[in-house]
Amino acid sequence: MKKLRQISVIGLGLLGSSVTLTISRSLAGVKTVGYSHRGVTREKARQLGVVDEVCDDIETCVREADMVILATPVCTFEGIFREIAPALPDGAIVTDVGSVKVLPHRWAERTLSRKIYYVGSHPIAGSEKRGVEFGRDDLFANSRCIVTKSGRTNAAALGRVRRFWQDLGCSVNVMTPAEHDRIFGRVSHVPHVTAVALVNAGDSEELKYAGKGFIDTSRVASGPANVWTDILMTNAENISRGIDAVIRELNRIQRAVLNKDAKAVERILSEAGAKRAALIKYKVKNKELL
Amino acid sequence: MKKLRQISVIGLGLLGSSVTLTISRSLAGVKTVGYSHRGVTREKARQLGVVDEVCDDIETCVREADMVILATPVCTFEGIFREIAPALPDGAIVTDVGSVKVLPHRWAERTLSRKIYYVGSHPIAGSEKRGVEFGRDDLFANSRCIVTKSGRTNAAALGRVRRFWQDLGCSVNVMTPAEHDRIFGRVSHVPHVTAVALVNAGDSEELKYAGKGFIDTSRVASGPANVWTDILMTNAENISRGIDAVIRELNRIQRAVLNKDAKAVERILSEAGAKRAALIKYKVKNKELL
Repeated sequence: MKKLRQISVIGLGLLGSSVTLTISRSLAGVKTVGYSHRGVTREKARQLGVVDEVCDDIETCVREADMVILATPVCTFEGIFREIAPALPDGAIVTDVGSVKVLPHRWAERTLSRKIYYVGSHPIAGSEKRGVEFGRDDLFANSRCIVTKSGRTNAAALGRVRRFWQDLGCSVNVMTPAEHDRIFGRVSHVPHVTAVALVNAGDSEELKYAGKGFIDTSRVASGPANVWTDILMTNAENISRGIDAVIRELNRIQRAVLNKDAKAVERILSEAGAKRAALIKYKVKNKELL
Repeated sequence: MKKLRQISVIGLGLLGSSVTLTISRSLAGVKTVGYSHRGVTREKARQLGVVDEVCDDIETCVREADMVILATPVCTFEGIFREIAPALPDGAIVTDVGSVKVLPHRWAERTLSRKIYYVGSHPIAGSEKRGVEFGRDDLFANSRCIVTKSGRTNAAALGRVRRFWQDLGCSVNVMTPAEHDRIFGRVSHVPHVTAVALVNAGDSEELKYAGKGFIDTSRVASGPANVWTDILMTNAENISRGIDAVIRELNRIQRAVLNKDAKAVERILSEAGAKRAALIKYKVKNKELL
């Protein structure tokens, strides 16, 4: 497999521009080329210099790429694979930064030729901010990236993508798309849904009394609605099962409270406290939390 | 009503010690006296100098107090009112920092004499940390404090308590205990329950993949289990209704996702995004968020 000389990024929002800025900082000699379907974003990307070259059409963007990274909402992937397929040079690696992995693997298998190597990626980094102007070259520092492989994934391409994210500062885990979607349904998509439900269950006048607890608990509900709609739609089964699990836990607390069973309530709260303490300890040990 | 010369605080955890430290910084000439039922805490409070005087028994602590502040878990209030009632000097004001207000008002009316003036307080400040060593003299800066009055509350005592929290840096709202418990059930107690349910619904091995979103969404679940058990037990009806509302919202999202109704999902997410944006705007304008 050839050396990486050009990496093309499609989608120049917070994640896409952070990828290109981090490449520029971390990978000497690699040219970054970017495309956004929005003229305004391309203009800003040029002004801010987040890529070496901004292209006005998607085919030009990928034509000489050794690696192409999709950083657009998940539901756009299938269409983009179709658009870029004829322009991709043989041997190119295609990956993405989407939060869901089963469907992108399926779409890639359907639309990309056997001479194109698709590998799924999901860097666990982000922000509730959005837009090219929030791109940062340290977004991936001390973060984790999941790289996904199916039975059809090329081993050399997988190794290349893994190494790429490591070079950008991530610690990488490899898993199957199904494992990925099950786990991230639970640790990311369902928490998002819970935050949204919490905000929507609140009365706007009452919310004025919210303190720091509510602000933190609901932070992710400020994430971009279009991106999250795509995530929820493409991981529906896992999310539905996760919602059921949260509702079961809510009912368990509700029952204990209404039964005036203080011991049961304290047991449930202590269980959560201990579980979260173990999580924080693990994250601090792994330097994922500072 | 006499000038405040001595304020006694019962309970020297994070909140109690932050109250005394802030009094020392903000109210010149006021002596702070503290009591904790734990010998270890009294010892630490002496070493750290968080109060002017630490008492080894609760009666001595309140005997010369112009104002007594309870900073212990809510379910201890009734017993403490009984214990201090015989020792309180006529004209003393009693208040607290509890997160629930209907029951404390009821307990005070039952146990304190007519010459003692109870007013409820709930400073909206805190941390998931606990213990006298985390006391800070800036915990109340730019925060809000709810002061509660029932039909029996003495107007001068109410004014005095309101002024007290303002002197400590809070902006104060006055409301009835019932209004308070309804509102804070929604904006604080139910979010706590949701965070706990989310953590307990997760598998410990899967949680290792949690990112910053999950960490923030679940932060409050690390709050002290005994304190929160008391809050949930003493505001059971409001919390149960709030849990029902969150479950309704979770089911609404689940239905839209399973029906593959992307428009409905995006509408729900946008609704939450707009609501939270309005909240953040209000908080920033009010300087409650910096």
